[in-house]
Amino acid sequence: MSVGTVYGLGLGPGAADLMSVRADRLLRGATHVAYFRKAGCNGQARAIVEGVIPAGATEHPMEYPVTTEIPFSDPRYNEVLAAFYAESCARLRTLAEAGEDVVVLCEGDPFFYGSFMHLYTRLTGVVPVEVVPGITGMSAAWTATGAPITWGDDILTVLPGTLPEDALVRGIAGADAVVVMKMGRHLPKLRRALARAGRAGEAWLVECAAMPGQKVTRLDDYPGETAPYFSIALVHGQGRRP
Amino acid sequence: MSVGTVYGLGLGPGAADLMSVRADRLLRGATHVAYFRKAGCNGQARAIVEGVIPAGATEHPMEYPVTTEIPFSDPRYNEVLAAFYAESCARLRTLAEAGEDVVVLCEGDPFFYGSFMHLYTRLTGVVPVEVVPGITGMSAAWTATGAPITWGDDILTVLPGTLPEDALVRGIAGADAVVVMKMGRHLPKLRRALARAGRAGEAWLVECAAMPGQKVTRLDDYPGETAPYFSIALVHGQGRRP
Ligand SMILES: C[S@@+](CC[C@H](N)C(=O)[O-])C[C@H]1O[C@@H](n2cnc3c(N)ncnc32)[C@H](O)[C@@H]1O
Ligand SMILES: C[S@@+](CC[C@H](N)C(=O)[O-])C[C@H]1O[C@@H](n2cnc3c(N)ncnc32)[C@H](O)[C@@H]1O
Repeated sequence: MSVGTVYGLGLGPGAADLMSVRADRLLRGATHVAYFRKAGCNGQARAIVEGVIPAGATEHPMEYPVTTEIPFSDPRYNEVLAAFYAESCARLRTLAEAGEDVVVLCEGDPFFYGSFMHLYTRLTGVVPVEVVPGITGMSAAWTATGAPITWGDDILTVLPGTLPEDALVRGIAGADAVVVMKMGRHLPKLRRALARAGRAGEAWLVECAAMPGQKVTRLDDYPGETAPYFSIALVHGQGRRP
Repeated sequence: MSVGTVYGLGLGPGAADLMSVRADRLLRGATHVAYFRKAGCNGQARAIVEGVIPAGATEHPMEYPVTTEIPFSDPRYNEVLAAFYAESCARLRTLAEAGEDVVVLCEGDPFFYGSFMHLYTRLTGVVPVEVVPGITGMSAAWTATGAPITWGDDILTVLPGTLPEDALVRGIAGADAVVVMKMGRHLPKLRRALARAGRAGEAWLVECAAMPGQKVTRLDDYPGETAPYFSIALVHGQGRRP
């Protein structure tokens, strides 16, 4: 009996038809489909593929034990997550060693701030693992604004909104085009950082890019103090253009 | 008669099955297919879709008048390119106004350092234009290295290799993960910049990611003084990982 393969499947930003042809084909042929979710939710990755997953496929939800309840700085955060990833890998490994292929659903591109990376590093060299890249959430976000993100010699910097304010200011100041991910309740800090770097008036906020609730707002006109999980802030580059 | 739509179609990094399902569907139904190319070459975008373009489609190659023959700094560079883009737009506009949809082939993601942006800004508001995002070349490049590009709070900076050495050093020094595009004959300068920023030993060079000639090399082991046009250098982030 041959060993099965674990596929990290980039699903793209949200619309099912922004999945790659390769991901679509692998998914439609899948017998085992695994995905991360928070307890009580079905998760965005699973939502994207509704209607594409074959009816007979066995689903393997992997439920996060914590996300924001324990602060990053608490040593328990790492312990609990590490145990969760190890247990998830054991499940996938058992399936693969029984000769089954397993498809793991990943939002956007798996290797770009994705959770699949934590499984990938643990499974590589143990069972066959293949990664299918995907369209990132940020590509859908700048497409939604109707303006190119980078021209000519523009520098693009991608910043997690979780960084300290000074790090955000440095990152914004050193770049022509800026993308900020994982903002959520860090939005007020991001506003301050953009203002300090002199780019506040140019920023956009995109919620749920390429998803049903997509919304594009100038950050100056955005009323909230918190942005939803699927939000990206961006500043467009203004580089050389004939 | 209704006006046709110009579609900027992100084709992804190279393999035809890394196109999105949406791009694949639009392309298979297309009657007019336009793409940029250098005189004498058929161009990478056209190569990606060989076998997907319907047999009856009319092809509209748009041939660059210059690429590297005139330096960027020469005012003629902008003049010649601007005239070329204006003329290309006139062709697309005539088709759309005659009621025809036209698909414009774009490597990777159209709004990420793509040439289509120059048509987009000129056609928007004149005829209907729609952009389909795509998997970027850099996503395929980091996937090819078999290692995630960004973890946790990592900062990613994307740098055009055409920048001056000092700008490259600053960009590399301020980031955790680095992607360098458009390298070509700028490779020796990039090597110096990586060394000055203390990251030389960690860099990879990916040629033709997701294309037939894909090659992944540690930059230290790369023998050439020039990299092919479709090359990306990258340094992986090493952020927080439970
Ligand atoms: C853990 S990261 C995963 C990124 C994903 N792997 C990608 O390639 O886009 C989650 C963050 O990505 C961003 N994101 C991903 N998809 C998005 C979308 N469709 N719309 C808005 N934000 C998105 C949000 O900032 C969110 O907090
Ligand atoms: C004009 S930019 C176009 C970028 C494209 N729109 C994208 O989304 O990747 C051309 C540069 O992209 C990079 N590139 C694009 N696709 C690539 C691939 N498949 N392999 C390696 N490099 C690629 C190279 O650095 C090349 O010089």
